[in-house]
Amino acid sequence: MGRWEPDARGRLANAALELYSEHGFEQTTVAEIAKRAGLTERTFFRHYADKREVLFAGSGQLEELLVRAVADAPESAAPIDAVAVGLDAISEVFADRRDHARKRQAVIMANAELHERELIKLASMSAALADTLRRRGVAGPAASLTAEAGVAVFKVGFERWVAATEQREMSQLMRESLDDLKAVLTGR
Amino acid sequence: MGRWEPDARGRLANAALELYSEHGFEQTTVAEIAKRAGLTERTFFRHYADKREVLFAGSGQLEELLVRAVADAPESAAPIDAVAVGLDAISEVFADRRDHARKRQAVIMANAELHERELIKLASMSAALADTLRRRGVAGPAASLTAEAGVAVFKVGFERWVAATEQREMSQLMRESLDDLKAVLTGR
Repeated sequence: MGRWEPDARGRLANAALELYSEHGFEQTTVAEIAKRAGLTERTFFRHYADKREVLFAGSGQLEELLVRAVADAPESAAPIDAVAVGLDAISEVFADRRDHARKRQAVIMANAELHERELIKLASMSAALADTLRRRGVAGPAASLTAEAGVAVFKVGFERWVAATEQREMSQLMRESLDDLKAVLTGR
Repeated sequence: MGRWEPDARGRLANAALELYSEHGFEQTTVAEIAKRAGLTERTFFRHYADKREVLFAGSGQLEELLVRAVADAPESAAPIDAVAVGLDAISEVFADRRDHARKRQAVIMANAELHERELIKLASMSAALADTLRRRGVAGPAASLTAEAGVAVFKVGFERWVAATEQREMSQLMRESLDDLKAVLTGR
């Protein structure tokens, strides 16, 4: 990237999300995204493989962040508490991005193919989380089940956080969702 | 379907699974499936939209069965116990199909696209389950969380059931997986 394109990547992402929100994902072209960002198509393709990639470029980083936080949780932490540490780490990253996240969520829920892609990213997160828990010594199905529970909490907590009228912080909603999951499972 | 093709659908499904197991999903053609089943391609396409559909034709029925069992569970049953009734109903259907299920699982896990399709079917199951729980009066995020927990138990219980050396019944493995999930969440 040249010095004359400060944060080209971020500008392209914002322009893309604006256009997807205004005209729909399918109706938007890479040429329009580049134009809105004041950049060229060539620059777009230096940063993203295609227009779908703009929406999912952050998923890999999110997974890494979650996995690292869970791996680094105190050795004495129970598996589900290590996962809660991971959810806290994710919540910090999202703190200032609620408006962006709401727009992205609306775009994704409006398109079946994007929604499927999102589900696949969440499944990848669950598999990575299970691997991390196994490396922490969690044996057998408990690793997969704890990982699935963590991703379920993330999914539901995230949906609550991006809901139109919701004002509470993500970290609080994740904690509440985890408590809710414990409650429904134990019938309390 | 003419009288001269008794259980053409089942014969095509078995022939397809055999060929996918022997040569791989990608390498198998519809012409080969029809030939192995002793039928024509035209008959194949009367039963299935394409060769992928053969593997997922049962997913819709499975979801219906689960949803109906949960909807019909005793009114007094806690949400997670209604889900357990649904998992029992599924287990009955699979009882005699372990060999078929093992082969299908191996084919699906060997192909990224099929694996993604399977994840999407599971997500659809979770959404249908959450809707059913809402109709049973389960409010707010508890419906989604209970549904996600149910699908997590199904996923992990199913993986245990198709494992090469596993001999216990699916219903038992589902119950154990649910107990394991409760245990990891409550730290017991």
